[in-house]
Amino acid sequence: MFMRVDKLQAELPAPKKADPNAAAALQELLGGKYGEMSTLNNYMFQSFNFRSKSKLRPFYDLVASITAEELGHVELVSNGVVMLANGPDKPENEKGGADISDAPWADMQDIRLAQSFLANAGGATPVNSGGVSWNTDFVTTTGNVVVDLLHNFHLECGARLHKLRVYETMKTDTGREVCGYLLVRGSVHAHSYALALKQITGVAIEKMLPTPNINLSKIPECQKYLDEGSHRRLYTWSETDYKSIAGLWNSSEGALPGDPPGELEVVDGMPEGGKIHDLTGVASAFTPDYAPEEMFEIATKLYKASR
Amino acid sequence: MFMRVDKLQAELPAPKKADPNAAAALQELLGGKYGEMSTLNNYMFQSFNFRSKSKLRPFYDLVASITAEELGHVELVSNGVVMLANGPDKPENEKGGADISDAPWADMQDIRLAQSFLANAGGATPVNSGGVSWNTDFVTTTGNVVVDLLHNFHLECGARLHKLRVYETMKTDTGREVCGYLLVRGSVHAHSYALALKQITGVAIEKMLPTPNINLSKIPECQKYLDEGSHRRLYTWSETDYKSIAGLWNSSEGALPGDPPGELEVVDGMPEGGKIHDLTGVASAFTPDYAPEEMFEIATKLYKASR
Amino acid sequence: MFMRVDKLQAELPAPKKADPNAAAALQELLGGKYGEMSTLNNYMFQSFNFRSKSKLRPFYDLVASITAEELGHVELVSNGVVMLANGPDKPENEKGGADISDAPWADMQDIRLAQSFLANAGGATPVNSGGVSWNTDFVTTTGNVVVDLLHNFHLECGARLHKLRVYETMKTDTGREVCGYLLVRGSVHAHSYALALKQITGVAIEKMLPTPNINLSKIPECQKYLDEGSHRRLYTWSETDYKSIAGLWNSSEGALPGDPPGELEVVDGMPEGGKIHDLTGVASAFTPDYAPEEMFEIATKLYKASR
Amino acid sequence: MFMRVDKLQAELPAPKKADPNAAAALQELLGGKYGEMSTLNNYMFQSFNFRSKSKLRPFYDLVASITAEELGHVELVSNGVVMLANGPDKPENEKGGADISDAPWADMQDIRLAQSFLANAGGATPVNSGGVSWNTDFVTTTGNVVVDLLHNFHLECGARLHKLRVYETMKTDTGREVCGYLLVRGSVHAHSYALALKQITGVAIEKMLPTPNINLSKIPECQKYLDEGSHRRLYTWSETDYKSIAGLWNSSEGALPGDPPGELEVVDGMPEGGKIHDLTGVASAFTPDYAPEEMFEIATKLYKASR
Amino acid sequence: MFMRVDKLQAELPAPKKADPNAAAALQELLGGKYGEMSTLNNYMFQSFNFRSKSKLRPFYDLVASITAEELGHVELVSNGVVMLANGPDKPENEKGGADISDAPWADMQDIRLAQSFLANAGGATPVNSGGVSWNTDFVTTTGNVVVDLLHNFHLECGARLHKLRVYETMKTDTGREVCGYLLVRGSVHAHSYALALKQITGVAIEKMLPTPNINLSKIPECQKYLDEGSHRRLYTWSETDYKSIAGLWNSSEGALPGDPPGELEVVDGMPEGGKIHDLTGVASAFTPDYAPEEMFEIATKLYKASR
Amino acid sequence: MFMRVDKLQAELPAPKKADPNAAAALQELLGGKYGEMSTLNNYMFQSFNFRSKSKLRPFYDLVASITAEELGHVELVSNGVVMLANGPDKPENEKGGADISDAPWADMQDIRLAQSFLANAGGATPVNSGGVSWNTDFVTTTGNVVVDLLHNFHLECGARLHKLRVYETMKTDTGREVCGYLLVRGSVHAHSYALALKQITGVAIEKMLPTPNINLSKIPECQKYLDEGSHRRLYTWSETDYKSIAGLWNSSEGALPGDPPGELEVVDGMPEGGKIHDLTGVASAFTPDYAPEEMFEIATKLYKASR
Repeated sequence: MFMRVDKLQAELPAPKKADPNAAAALQELLGGKYGEMSTLNNYMFQSFNFRSKSKLRPFYDLVASITAEELGHVELVSNGVVMLANGPDKPENEKGGADISDAPWADMQDIRLAQSFLANAGGATPVNSGGVSWNTDFVTTTGNVVVDLLHNFHLECGARLHKLRVYETMKTDTGREVCGYLLVRGSVHAHSYALALKQITGVAIEKMLPTPNINLSKIPECQKYLDEGSHRRLYTWSETDYKSIAGLWNSSEGALPGDPPGELEVVDGMPEGGKIHDLTGVASAFTPDYAPEEMFEIATKLYKASR
Repeated sequence: MFMRVDKLQAELPAPKKADPNAAAALQELLGGKYGEMSTLNNYMFQSFNFRSKSKLRPFYDLVASITAEELGHVELVSNGVVMLANGPDKPENEKGGADISDAPWADMQDIRLAQSFLANAGGATPVNSGGVSWNTDFVTTTGNVVVDLLHNFHLECGARLHKLRVYETMKTDTGREVCGYLLVRGSVHAHSYALALKQITGVAIEKMLPTPNINLSKIPECQKYLDEGSHRRLYTWSETDYKSIAGLWNSSEGALPGDPPGELEVVDGMPEGGKIHDLTGVASAFTPDYAPEEMFEIATKLYKASR
Repeated sequence: MFMRVDKLQAELPAPKKADPNAAAALQELLGGKYGEMSTLNNYMFQSFNFRSKSKLRPFYDLVASITAEELGHVELVSNGVVMLANGPDKPENEKGGADISDAPWADMQDIRLAQSFLANAGGATPVNSGGVSWNTDFVTTTGNVVVDLLHNFHLECGARLHKLRVYETMKTDTGREVCGYLLVRGSVHAHSYALALKQITGVAIEKMLPTPNINLSKIPECQKYLDEGSHRRLYTWSETDYKSIAGLWNSSEGALPGDPPGELEVVDGMPEGGKIHDLTGVASAFTPDYAPEEMFEIATKLYKASR
Repeated sequence: MFMRVDKLQAELPAPKKADPNAAAALQELLGGKYGEMSTLNNYMFQSFNFRSKSKLRPFYDLVASITAEELGHVELVSNGVVMLANGPDKPENEKGGADISDAPWADMQDIRLAQSFLANAGGATPVNSGGVSWNTDFVTTTGNVVVDLLHNFHLECGARLHKLRVYETMKTDTGREVCGYLLVRGSVHAHSYALALKQITGVAIEKMLPTPNINLSKIPECQKYLDEGSHRRLYTWSETDYKSIAGLWNSSEGALPGDPPGELEVVDGMPEGGKIHDLTGVASAFTPDYAPEEMFEIATKLYKASR
Repeated sequence: MFMRVDKLQAELPAPKKADPNAAAALQELLGGKYGEMSTLNNYMFQSFNFRSKSKLRPFYDLVASITAEELGHVELVSNGVVMLANGPDKPENEKGGADISDAPWADMQDIRLAQSFLANAGGATPVNSGGVSWNTDFVTTTGNVVVDLLHNFHLECGARLHKLRVYETMKTDTGREVCGYLLVRGSVHAHSYALALKQITGVAIEKMLPTPNINLSKIPECQKYLDEGSHRRLYTWSETDYKSIAGLWNSSEGALPGDPPGELEVVDGMPEGGKIHDLTGVASAFTPDYAPEEMFEIATKLYKASR
Repeated sequence: MFMRVDKLQAELPAPKKADPNAAAALQELLGGKYGEMSTLNNYMFQSFNFRSKSKLRPFYDLVASITAEELGHVELVSNGVVMLANGPDKPENEKGGADISDAPWADMQDIRLAQSFLANAGGATPVNSGGVSWNTDFVTTTGNVVVDLLHNFHLECGARLHKLRVYETMKTDTGREVCGYLLVRGSVHAHSYALALKQITGVAIEKMLPTPNINLSKIPECQKYLDEGSHRRLYTWSETDYKSIAGLWNSSEGALPGDPPGELEVVDGMPEGGKIHDLTGVASAFTPDYAPEEMFEIATKLYKASR
């Protein structure tokens, strides 16, 4: 089972302008082959299909708990997408009754993913940066632990490369923060799968990291996360379970060379997280509707009744 | 953010025999247009893209919290699939070194979804009952609250029809239990979206339920859930958040006609849940590997070290 | 614009038993690369996109009018599919309230396209014989008249081959009749595109027919259509338009060698057609619903009111 | 069976300039999830698969006759696409033998859907605004009348939202006219499905309209259609059949609030319609060919022979 | 550039009976995610896109030359598919004029991939064992050498697992021989990518082999290839180029533990190969046509003229 | 089996500037329906599946040998794509350690196929000009020789049209050269399939050429290939095999009207070909890596060891 907390894993700076093409680039990290929908669903289905769970507890727990973190990554990138596509919130847009007769959204014909406006009003969807759907071809769940872990290690390395390239296209703080955070956490996952593989096969595959061979110190947006030691920390993402990942991730191993040194550590539960951006609606885009005032009123009444 | 608990929403009876075609039928409820991957991702992306969250709190909270339950539905169906595909656990299969030279899996050429064995050793994947991938075409997230809620209501009604038909093909307890549980919970979701629509539009659309017009009382596997009142209960799936759904789902409304009567109620958190089946590996299928003994030993050591 | 007539192009014999795998084979002629959805949409979009219509009237009229016939082919194959999937009508099935608790549809797990039952209750959909969707990759509309006509000629030849092979798998009258009718009409279309190409290029490409090189006389189900001269007849499928196809298809040309001889002729309008099979519902499959009696009553009242 | 008439449902103003990105936006209304290919094929396949037709005549007739109108919608949007992509007709372009050696179409590398030029010379195809194919995932045909009608009602509401957003991006008359016409007719379809659902379920779901909650009076291009009462009129799209839709759509019901008032009425047959734009070819784009003069001559001769 | 030789890499024993479901299983090794179309196209596109070729010659040469071998693997599996689907050659089938009116191919409705008969007469196509297309999602070509090589290493390990599982379903010599040969050669490729990675990263990743951890000695069909040392041999697949792979694959390294020991060696050119099976046509399936006699005669004349 | 030679079929002029949208247009000729992946895989799978090979030798040899040429066409277009996407080589880019913190690749958000940078650093992949995957729907392999040859003839005519349109968008030498070369060679293939069809059917279908009806003399980039007689020449692409194509392509036939006259001739083996462009890496795009110096050093050492 899964629980939900109304927070983001990292707080995102508000966008300074609408930048739909930046949002489209970020979609590669959401619905692309090496995006978060892929990491999520690989680990999620592997955890469902895991054999000999009780005998392989630390390996099962690793895949199962990272699944929960990936859900939050999907959430983070999605928030980045919708924020970039919509730009700074303007409360006046939320007021109903706009004049729509003069092509107020003409610019949307020339953005790269016009459908993201036409169908989703800039909302995130499980597609890549070209608007092509995420799908099962991106999921490997063989039931063979070595093949699955090796796949996951390769997936995280490929994901790192994609995050780096998306980052290199981003001029906005919102998008850069998404990349910076994901680069640090993705590095942890690559590292953890490497250690798991090493335990089984004896191959010190973590020495292949970082791949691509650039240190996170080169990326300003990673620094605060490195400073707080995020790169040395695995969460259980559970109040009660998955603690045996400490068999794989513990003080016997240290941070990757090039990152701030220190011992690896497991933290029960989740990080503190940040606030979810409160996206205002845009009546002329029919979000939440063209004349939402009555809806707001109803909601207020219902909300009060619920307290 | 999302947390995980190492339990299933409902405990599934162990399969009595391997039944790959039953597993394949169940895949329709996992990766089909009206399957759980669709309900999950519709609500998940709608919750990410929700506009005017603070002004529409009860509506946002509804979509956001049901997302978490749908994750557990995906998990439940997936467990059903892998259990049915593999059949009863036989610890002797976990022993390495089987003779694979005499076509031990010849039968797998004739099952409907041969790929589910060849690629996944019977594991669940996000495909429908014909092996075709789940994809973004199944996701509607327009940012318009009425359109999205209406879509969701229609989706739950369609999902109910599919669950009923899959149920009618199932001779095994494992598969029937999955359907019975999902029928009850899906009914709650359809009901809750109807009530949300009614608040905004004034249309008593919940009177369209049940659709198809068969009462859950006709389905033996639903009874224990009805008896405990599951059909009148929404969970927040959170320790701290989403409580305002009580503005929409509360004692001012009652159970659907045909179901055991009573007031609607919100429960903070999640249900107790049941045990996840501990699927044993099958060495000749290379799960967790062909000669897993050393892997088991390593895992045991790591597990102990983690305590 | 298009008009509709509540008839089939050919009357289909009622099925003698449910034969879902025969229905699945027939789907190849509906949603496969060389199926009727392909012929329909190729000609339909070519007619929309046709350049210099007024200067190329007979060529435009040919593509535009055959489009209307292809709609009826899609309809014919679809009727064949749903009839074969459901088998002989049993009025008692239409009665509501069946017991669904004992896996009444267990057999549906083993049919080739289980989804056709689970999602469509045996209804036709735009997929091929393997359940994979028809899509735009099957549509060629270049705006170049020679390329488009050559494509169409090749398409009809390929379609003929597929119809022959599907025919060879059919043991039921319903399916064989669909194939027999389509073979005759497809032959007309191949012939007409060949004559159009010959007019423009001077190449007597109709001499390549029949391809594959088997005469229709070998197929019993084609005989009655040959006897009535269907193979020498193009319809305008319009009360008022498309008459200039007579510039391409007329008495200056005769039937293909191997077919009953005679001059080619254009007939204004459409053939007489046959009755659409009145498929009864099956309450246990929730068609039209689980307890449809009240629905029938309402419909009867509304029907009377409409007279 | 289907007949064809060589007219459009609404006459479109000639484009003033080529605007390929506007054409691409319009594609969302053709091949997108909520586009006309979807409405067409949902209703078409539902009508083929309809159970208990004779007992449910008014409901069957509704779905069957709207199918024919949707064919004309597909035609209308397609004409809009090809007109916008090609711009004003220039007879001089039809003259063969242009110099193609100096990259005359270099601009086509930068339009959003370059393939629409490369493969289709600006012609319409069944793809969405991002060039992704329409497919069977957009078709729901369950055989359950309530689920199918509810799906259709939701589909028309979603379609309305998409039409509104596409409209808001359109600066050209050609594109705006397409949207204006479709908004009025789509409103009729949503209304009619609502009334059908109300008859069966007793739920006054038409009170949810309009969704999104903007009146058509806000859209100048809708006015002439409202003035002539198009919003209160259903056509049978048949000379002989589907008349029983008058059981559902008749003087007992009136126009939607916000639209010009009046009683609902059924009109036998079809509207008068408008002229199809005669798109001139462009030799340098090889439409109808690079040196079409001889082809024109041949066609003229054949046309004369056909009179 | 590529040259072709009219031979197979390994000679396949003639099938003893038609076994379409075995052919379908083999398709997983052709068009599945971990099949030969994937290995081929990954290496082919990586070789086209390779950066700094001259500075990284041995790495480029490795990827480029293995591409050529993979072409032969695609050819080998395809031959296996078409042989298994068609069964033993019967020269009498090649004779034209068969009676097709009595459903001679009725059995084809019940094979798993009916389309493989209907569209391809049992021919191989780039689809997986479920009939779903191979596509670009299976191709990783990042331009980053470490990521690409790591991907390739994982791909070969995954491919080995799939070959093993397909092998375990095969009762026919033809299919087993395909698997046996590919297992040996795939092992060489995994080994060579591992050695390439080791050179760059210093990680002895070849120690992870074999994955899955079963020795080839367990598979009778591999023995003759092991005996002749195939597992220690890389070919350049070129008369003139790609020799620098000897920098990576040479006597400084030995066979994998568990395989017959010996030094690694590079062989210029290609192996001797075996005869391509001469598949006879089947007139009733329209291969090469329904009445092929005249075609044979023409071909014989043309053949003689060419000598 | 296939061999490889480290050369291109035609030498491409170095690009003068990066032109990602030109590269994207070229992708239509690589992964589009009428692109080189389609010609390659149609002929390749047809050659694998060919029936009665020994009796139909010249026809089999034709399809089999052209397959090898198409591999080189895929290679040529791919080289064109990656060269255009990357622009002129700048050795300084290959130096590691660039500053990536200031959005060095911001421009990549606005190119048409942003994914081609994000995932492939401008590398070619099997997708069309809109980024949609090549797939099996583009492959026709029926086993019927006339249908397959007719398909191939249509495919080459359609391919010619697409090459012409792509050419008309190209302002760069690199891209224009690719088109010029392919137009000449594609013309040979269309011609050869026409002659093969003529032999079997007696229809002089080659008289339909050129389609579209523009002579190659209109295209400057074709001239040098016409001058050297490339349009009259078929290669066997083999040292030893496929010689019987001379039964179909020989001095009894001449060049197409409009092309430089002369007899048709078969050349054993392959053309001389040209140099493959040595694409330098770009460290900031992580090709071959971010700090490739050590990798270069290792490769140099290995290369030397291999001599």
